[in-house]
Amino acid sequence: MIRQQSETDRQFILENMFVAVMDNIFLLVLVTLLSVVQNVFFALKVEKECTGPHSKPHSAAFERLSCANRNCMDTYPTFLAVLWCAGICLSQAPAAFAGIIYLVVRQKYFVGYLGQTCQSTPGFLFGKRILFFLSLMCVVGIINHLMLSYGGSDYKEYIQTITKAASTLLLLP
Amino acid sequence: MIRQQSETDRQFILENMFVAVMDNIFLLVLVTLLSVVQNVFFALKVEKECTGPHSKPHSAAFERLSCANRNCMDTYPTFLAVLWCAGICLSQAPAAFAGIIYLVVRQKYFVGYLGQTCQSTPGFLFGKRILFFLSLMCVVGIINHLMLSYGGSDYKEYIQTITKAASTLLLLP
Amino acid sequence: MIRQQSETDRQFILENMFVAVMDNIFLLVLVTLLSVVQNVFFALKVEKECTGPHSKPHSAAFERLSCANRNCMDTYPTFLAVLWCAGICLSQAPAAFAGIIYLVVRQKYFVGYLGQTCQSTPGFLFGKRILFFLSLMCVVGIINHLMLSYGGSDYKEYIQTITKAASTLLLLP
Repeated sequence: MIRQQSETDRQFILENMFVAVMDNIFLLVLVTLLSVVQNVFFALKVEKECTGPHSKPHSAAFERLSCANRNCMDTYPTFLAVLWCAGICLSQAPAAFAGIIYLVVRQKYFVGYLGQTCQSTPGFLFGKRILFFLSLMCVVGIINHLMLSYGGSDYKEYIQTITKAASTLLLLP
Repeated sequence: MIRQQSETDRQFILENMFVAVMDNIFLLVLVTLLSVVQNVFFALKVEKECTGPHSKPHSAAFERLSCANRNCMDTYPTFLAVLWCAGICLSQAPAAFAGIIYLVVRQKYFVGYLGQTCQSTPGFLFGKRILFFLSLMCVVGIINHLMLSYGGSDYKEYIQTITKAASTLLLLP
Repeated sequence: MIRQQSETDRQFILENMFVAVMDNIFLLVLVTLLSVVQNVFFALKVEKECTGPHSKPHSAAFERLSCANRNCMDTYPTFLAVLWCAGICLSQAPAAFAGIIYLVVRQKYFVGYLGQTCQSTPGFLFGKRILFFLSLMCVVGIINHLMLSYGGSDYKEYIQTITKAASTLLLLP
């Protein structure tokens, strides 16, 4: 009987549980850390432009960097939310892969930002396709969970394989 | 003995664990996805106003939309944080329900935004009651957990029933 | 055999699982709630400055508060992300402690904000050391997990003890 071994079992379950949780999120944590490093890089760039020896308080270059930084920050919570939901609901490897591509796209966006004020607001111009892919992963994961709960069929492994293959399509320009 | 069946058991525990985790978060994931769709809708609105044929770079309409968008984005991480904490600590159904009401309030706020500059900063003007309700759910969940850990009494089921009933009060205008 | 007691076991595993999850996150939830309260405090300050009897729409004081608020909000998702990753990957107590110190630093930053426009952009000026400490915790947690998975050695307890001791170093000015 299990309940008579309660203390040992609880320990055993917990150990396995935390290994399992870490197994399923450590790639997401790595991507999150990379994105944090990138955020700090962006902020230091803005700070340098602001306090450098040749800087003027309201120069065009400063406005440009500040604007690019703000657009990146505006979409950051949205990105984190879909990244983690997709990783937890379906599979972490494709989600982390898409996350890394998003970070590359964001880096390009920040570096190549032209700084026309009007361009500055729609921060979603970059990475729309990746956000859509991650959202799709969430939806598929939830549908699969509901089918498993109410229907009994579990296509999770097939879907994960398809998702992994599909995530490489994100590499297309 | 459990430890002698380690590999099979680990598999069994993990399968159950992921079904259980998904059971307890899929409504939160759905609300998060809805909020992401809304964010993209807001951003596209701003983008359209900005790049449309009749747009001027610094027109009043553009400033208004941009400001409403920024206020919504400013409170977005706060909303996500309390939504997920409340859903995990106590019960997902009332949290998701409150989240959906928050999204409706945010939609109304964005559409009906008057655009006076001074009104633009306090993004918390909308949905204060909902954020308070979600925070309260977190606090109750933590208190219940501490009582369960140190006292042994578990009122979680009663509290969940009360919370579900209380969440309908959010529908009051 | 475990599989023959499936329904009872599943119940038993789930009960233990949720107690265990709450055991490992309730401090993080508390810190998150505190940060939400602080966010609301900041927003109400800005709102009061904006709609008060002596306020002017574009006064210096208003710009100052609005700018401080925006800087705090810009770094908020980054802070939440590293706080939760560090707390889940390694140990919640030092992460929550660092989080509380971050909130104190943020409060000081908001209250003492001087409001020169150029200072306003680099929101990362405050709490860099804390964000670095939390990121380090994530990295150490992931390395430990990989060593446990592939090598078999588990230093998690030693590392947690060291982390707890190291977190007090954050108190140094």
